Amino acid sequence: MSPFTGSATRTPDWRHLSLTVDDGVATVTLARPDRLNALTFGAYADLRDLLAELSRERSVRALVLGGEGRGFCSGGDVDEIIGATLAMDTAQLLDFNRMTGQVVRAIRECPFPVVAGVHGVAAGAGAVLALAADFRVADPSATFSFLFTRVGLSGGDMGAAYLLPRVVGLGHATRLLMLGEPVRAPEAERIGLISELTEEGRAAEAAQALARRLAEGPALAHAQTKALLTAELDMPLAASVELDAATQALLMNGEDYAEFHAAFTEKRPPKWQGR
Amino acid sequence: MSPFTGSATRTPDWRHLSLTVDDGVATVTLARPDRLNALTFGAYADLRDLLAELSRERSVRALVLGGEGRGFCSGGDVDEIIGATLAMDTAQLLDFNRMTGQVVRAIRECPFPVVAGVHGVAAGAGAVLALAADFRVADPSATFSFLFTRVGLSGGDMGAAYLLPRVVGLGHATRLLMLGEPVRAPEAERIGLISELTEEGRAAEAAQALARRLAEGPALAHAQTKALLTAELDMPLAASVELDAATQALLMNGEDYAEFHAAFTEKRPPKWQGR
Amino acid sequence: MSPFTGSATRTPDWRHLSLTVDDGVATVTLARPDRLNALTFGAYADLRDLLAELSRERSVRALVLGGEGRGFCSGGDVDEIIGATLAMDTAQLLDFNRMTGQVVRAIRECPFPVVAGVHGVAAGAGAVLALAADFRVADPSATFSFLFTRVGLSGGDMGAAYLLPRVVGLGHATRLLMLGEPVRAPEAERIGLISELTEEGRAAEAAQALARRLAEGPALAHAQTKALLTAELDMPLAASVELDAATQALLMNGEDYAEFHAAFTEKRPPKWQGR
Repeated sequence: MSPFTGSATRTPDWRHLSLTVDDGVATVTLARPDRLNALTFGAYADLRDLLAELSRERSVRALVLGGEGRGFCSGGDVDEIIGATLAMDTAQLLDFNRMTGQVVRAIRECPFPVVAGVHGVAAGAGAVLALAADFRVADPSATFSFLFTRVGLSGGDMGAAYLLPRVVGLGHATRLLMLGEPVRAPEAERIGLISELTEEGRAAEAAQALARRLAEGPALAHAQTKALLTAELDMPLAASVELDAATQALLMNGEDYAEFHAAFTEKRPPKWQGR
Repeated sequence: MSPFTGSATRTPDWRHLSLTVDDGVATVTLARPDRLNALTFGAYADLRDLLAELSRERSVRALVLGGEGRGFCSGGDVDEIIGATLAMDTAQLLDFNRMTGQVVRAIRECPFPVVAGVHGVAAGAGAVLALAADFRVADPSATFSFLFTRVGLSGGDMGAAYLLPRVVGLGHATRLLMLGEPVRAPEAERIGLISELTEEGRAAEAAQALARRLAEGPALAHAQTKALLTAELDMPLAASVELDAATQALLMNGEDYAEFHAAFTEKRPPKWQGR
Repeated sequence: MSPFTGSATRTPDWRHLSLTVDDGVATVTLARPDRLNALTFGAYADLRDLLAELSRERSVRALVLGGEGRGFCSGGDVDEIIGATLAMDTAQLLDFNRMTGQVVRAIRECPFPVVAGVHGVAAGAGAVLALAADFRVADPSATFSFLFTRVGLSGGDMGAAYLLPRVVGLGHATRLLMLGEPVRAPEAERIGLISELTEEGRAAEAAQALARRLAEGPALAHAQTKALLTAELDMPLAASVELDAATQALLMNGEDYAEFHAAFTEKRPPKWQGR
């Protein structure tokens, strides 16, 4: 836990998603299986607030994001979101779209790796949530569909026009965002959209295993690796090299680095502390 | 048509390329088949001016760029361009190279998707024109050759050193620009340089079909997707997320988004207006 | 040789690496085969200083970086570097990490292409040296392991969190830097980490052949291609197009461009001067 907690309390009950925490691994499950886990205003808000809470608490060393039932997430709910936004004024529309973007920023900026376990449909905002994760562990049933233009909106939603070209290149990203066609698992793996392809039905289990491994490893080193990857997409080479140097100098004063050397010398596995 | 037209008139005759417009789809054909569509000063100037004209008129919702005869475009003409530039002074050389770069900027910044239909040779400036397009629809005869170093020039021509690493990654881009070797269709597809691989001889037809589909879809959504992809290559994550939010809020006030919801509710296909 | 040499003299003896220069091609060999060419403080310092010296002298038109014995480079020496850094104060740690980063910057910024010839292990800092090169010529025995988190450090070391996403995309880069697992040659080729895959045991020879070809070609054009690729990763499109225009205008006044045209006209191969 962080020593820098203030007056804000832990949320007792996340009503729009399911959360379990097990020894440093948080598992967030989108749990509206009858609607293919379509996102509601409440689900976006809960994702935003949960990531903020976990980021300040520092109780978690890795997070798994998954979906219950037949698929990962079918995106914003047609009735509850598209219908409702048609009645909103400009300030409300901006507020809604900023909220969804804040979820993506929170996934990229939280101080622990996020592993999306993807099976079946990852569509619209669901595809962007997976895209924003550090790892996409997917089974052969996974399809990614950035279908925003199919509803008359911009393919650049929630940072997708920023993230996707940096993951799969500008050519594939243009095709995926402009046409909104489903990308099935084999193509997704070929173009670099999948981090780990599992056997059928094993995405959730493999995502848990990866998160467990990350949580039991040198968690501060993982957190800094993520922070530098995120930051250096937006930085020039010389500044990146300087940031890397300062970061390594800091971590070379840390306990895990000394532990590695001791363990190596004593020919035993290191006991990582995450600091 | 745009309500913001001024005194400038439509060009009655494009002498250095062939243009047809059919219900929102412009088709630009490089038409010097006896010279493999080698570019002349006039062809660059026409591409620059045509794209500016179409961008301000807003009469077009998608554009196809293709080449007549055996190939797409063999690049700058050795006699008419290389020979002529050897006699130019510094100001003229800068002016020429800025003009070619303006064509690439115009392709990236025009408010409609550009589909390059590529068969046979796409070499030098021809390869960069295809690279700057949003889609490269190519048949198995297509080869891309960034052969600038072969004539003693920099591989970074017309924005190629900016665009190519963002399409295929820095490793492949370095190899392609430094060595100037031809990339044949199978490799081009493998590294992400081709958007859609067609059967032999079908590139032009498939490029038309894609442009037609784009023009008949939610054209404002497509235009904004392109604009965000282009802009966010040069923007940090937080600003990109903000730009996406503002763009979606805008489009959620648009007619196509309401039409999607109405069509979905009425279980019929949407009638896109492009606004 | 450069006309802009000052008082600094050529280093008579590089004690921590092996250097040969043959008609414009420098070959730098990491030569501690009994330790899989593990890097020492002296080796980093020699790489930094040698690249600076070669950059100011302008005597070299291409450089090969390779390793003697069973592999390319196993990274920082566990005893001589990890052990020693545990005893360093903050200023020393920063100084060390800046030095390693300076080697990467020097590889990216030197005015000639760098070809890494990789066989066997390229691990830790060894993997980053290869990553920073313009070309990675590797044989099937090559493995790239960014194993920094394995010793409790950040995967963003020496610019790796900047470079790797720009070579293989953010998804693969996250996996490689976060987990530190070995990437074998077939996967490295598939994701764009290898420029040229050779037959077993032929990486050094093929790297030499490529460097020779580059050195005998239009070396100023190659140098500018490299400079633009490096710079334009950090530049927006419009500025990149302007930089390209200025560079081509400059090279169109150069001797190699005129020589190309003369040779083409006379139907003979050009004699490149590298200027």
